Amino acid sequence: MTLPTPADLAGALEAYRSAQPLTQCLTNIVVAQWTANVVLAAGGSPAMVDNQQEASGFAQIASGVLVNLGTPYEDTAVAMREAVAGCGIAGTPWVLDPIGAGGLPWRTALALELLELGRPAVIRGNASEIDGLAGGMGGKGADSAHEPDDVAEAARTLAVEQGCVVAVSGARDLVTDGERTVRLDNGNPLMTRVTGVGCCLGALMAGYAAVVDDALVAAASATAHLTVAGERAGARTSGPGTFAVALLDELAAVTPDDLAVRVRLS
Amino acid sequence: MTLPTPADLAGALEAYRSAQPLTQCLTNIVVAQWTANVVLAAGGSPAMVDNQQEASGFAQIASGVLVNLGTPYEDTAVAMREAVAGCGIAGTPWVLDPIGAGGLPWRTALALELLELGRPAVIRGNASEIDGLAGGMGGKGADSAHEPDDVAEAARTLAVEQGCVVAVSGARDLVTDGERTVRLDNGNPLMTRVTGVGCCLGALMAGYAAVVDDALVAAASATAHLTVAGERAGARTSGPGTFAVALLDELAAVTPDDLAVRVRLS
Amino acid sequence: MTLPTPADLAGALEAYRSAQPLTQCLTNIVVAQWTANVVLAAGGSPAMVDNQQEASGFAQIASGVLVNLGTPYEDTAVAMREAVAGCGIAGTPWVLDPIGAGGLPWRTALALELLELGRPAVIRGNASEIDGLAGGMGGKGADSAHEPDDVAEAARTLAVEQGCVVAVSGARDLVTDGERTVRLDNGNPLMTRVTGVGCCLGALMAGYAAVVDDALVAAASATAHLTVAGERAGARTSGPGTFAVALLDELAAVTPDDLAVRVRLS
Repeated sequence: MTLPTPADLAGALEAYRSAQPLTQCLTNIVVAQWTANVVLAAGGSPAMVDNQQEASGFAQIASGVLVNLGTPYEDTAVAMREAVAGCGIAGTPWVLDPIGAGGLPWRTALALELLELGRPAVIRGNASEIDGLAGGMGGKGADSAHEPDDVAEAARTLAVEQGCVVAVSGARDLVTDGERTVRLDNGNPLMTRVTGVGCCLGALMAGYAAVVDDALVAAASATAHLTVAGERAGARTSGPGTFAVALLDELAAVTPDDLAVRVRLS
Repeated sequence: MTLPTPADLAGALEAYRSAQPLTQCLTNIVVAQWTANVVLAAGGSPAMVDNQQEASGFAQIASGVLVNLGTPYEDTAVAMREAVAGCGIAGTPWVLDPIGAGGLPWRTALALELLELGRPAVIRGNASEIDGLAGGMGGKGADSAHEPDDVAEAARTLAVEQGCVVAVSGARDLVTDGERTVRLDNGNPLMTRVTGVGCCLGALMAGYAAVVDDALVAAASATAHLTVAGERAGARTSGPGTFAVALLDELAAVTPDDLAVRVRLS
Repeated sequence: MTLPTPADLAGALEAYRSAQPLTQCLTNIVVAQWTANVVLAAGGSPAMVDNQQEASGFAQIASGVLVNLGTPYEDTAVAMREAVAGCGIAGTPWVLDPIGAGGLPWRTALALELLELGRPAVIRGNASEIDGLAGGMGGKGADSAHEPDDVAEAARTLAVEQGCVVAVSGARDLVTDGERTVRLDNGNPLMTRVTGVGCCLGALMAGYAAVVDDALVAAASATAHLTVAGERAGARTSGPGTFAVALLDELAAVTPDDLAVRVRLS
């Protein structure tokens, strides 16, 4: 049971930039542009193929797939089922981001249905979503009512039950596969004042899961890449508009060495 | 018949930041991200729940709801009807932004149908949309052919007929409840060179309507918050790209005192 | 067979700013906001009317229409057919951007179907999409596997077959009507690190096609406007976030004289 080191995360960043993983995103209408720009800035290759005709076929050629339940509709739910089926056929790693799970019954049922259809590499959410998906009481929507460490036990249980990694985002991020649990303490409070910072993390994880065998390392590396960039962006901006722009610049600028030095991993 | 004062608007800004109103937005695919970022920057909490399964239930727990007709489809029209019904059940204040009303028959009919289903707190549009909704001749789409004062009488009539506040956006903004009419003279011409500046104002009004009893004060306060921020952003930028980014920063930075000093209310 | 000169492109920019062409965009959920902001920054007037009820009627009053296949769905495909029909009725110039053509069978068939329904003024894509549409082997999605000059022959053949201009985007852009072929060598590598830079070019071309009779000049002028702005933006930024913001500023700032001096046309 080896825990990832800063050097592992730095190596994953290098692998990500080198492979430029083709990341298929079935995501919400709010963050689709932001997510594509984050993936491009980070060094990946986004493809927002989210219609039911093409979702399965593309999932079979994509490097990794994100399924994000931010604004689900009946049509896109069909495409999501298709994408998960395609991942199963080709062995493509996928990430489930169950936005609003627990608080909103229809999409909670959809999240559970997708988990029946296939096993994701990573489930990523905030504390209330992970809690809600694990059967607890959900929050009021996309904003978490509590911090990741409050739901550490629920996250570990969910990871074991689903046979995947669970990543809980917050001021201190938590990533677990049920046996191993790591925490990351980078980031900046302005990350909560820009829509889709959590959503784009799911897309990064889908790409990292394609270039790193250990999904725990993949999820932790994506988290480190985003939160170290966020820390650097926060150091030179003071409002949410300029911060979001700087975050894209820093996602592109951060080097593996920077990451290894700056990441606070425990 | 008391007219709002700058101090009233400053107090509303303080109440908005303190309450962080949960603002459900059923809006268009063009401005969904921008609207969420504006609400976050201003101090509110956006939730873009716009599917027919969840729209009514969420409207019953939301603080305020925006229904924006920028890119309506048959499916989202169903969700809009559900959201308005949910607002009626729970007494949640909602804002109608009838983009393109008057000029486009299908969505004009949808706007009128939504007004039959429930009474909004505020109807917000540009001059041609308000004119179009009031039965006059509409413009060529989302761009207004004339200024708010040209349709002051139509706005007052619409406000009385619908029993709500009508807010008309332009270089000089006009807000009326049929009896009282106020004008605001802040802003910057670059606000017309960024898509969705009017759309996001509707979302701000939905949040302000949740924290201020008088819908006229709510609509005027949201207008002042946005246009004072726009004025400050315009003072330090000269192109539409940097202006939009600065506008988000200034929405977060403007204080109640700034607002009271800078707002030009008459 | 006259080739366009820098002065022709400068004149087209002046005509675009003066006419502010009403540009209807049926585009994808990823780039809708970006496209509207690019058109506004450039000096046009965007209208994202993409529902099946209004698409044909609006296409008959619009100055130009963009049909972009970035995230097609069954519903939006119906709206696209309606828009093309409306263009046929009114003689409105339209641009087809066949994102992913060649690589994705369903949308390739949709692109071909739209070409059966009407003749566009311009088909715009990257090299693999133009190759794919012309019947060759497509790429892995939206990212081009090769450069425009690799598909110059396919582009000319497609232009003759369809009776329209074909524009192929890349480091060196190529525009042809089958007889005349021009190349433009402006731009910046960061244009490939921002999502939707190609997509927004299609929207600019639709507007330029409305103000310039010769579609070859229209496509080349839109390309020059965007790539000269990109060159200027790249000169003062070094990351994808700040670059995208600066690109909007430069689209607004570039003058006809700047364009004539800077454009590298051959």
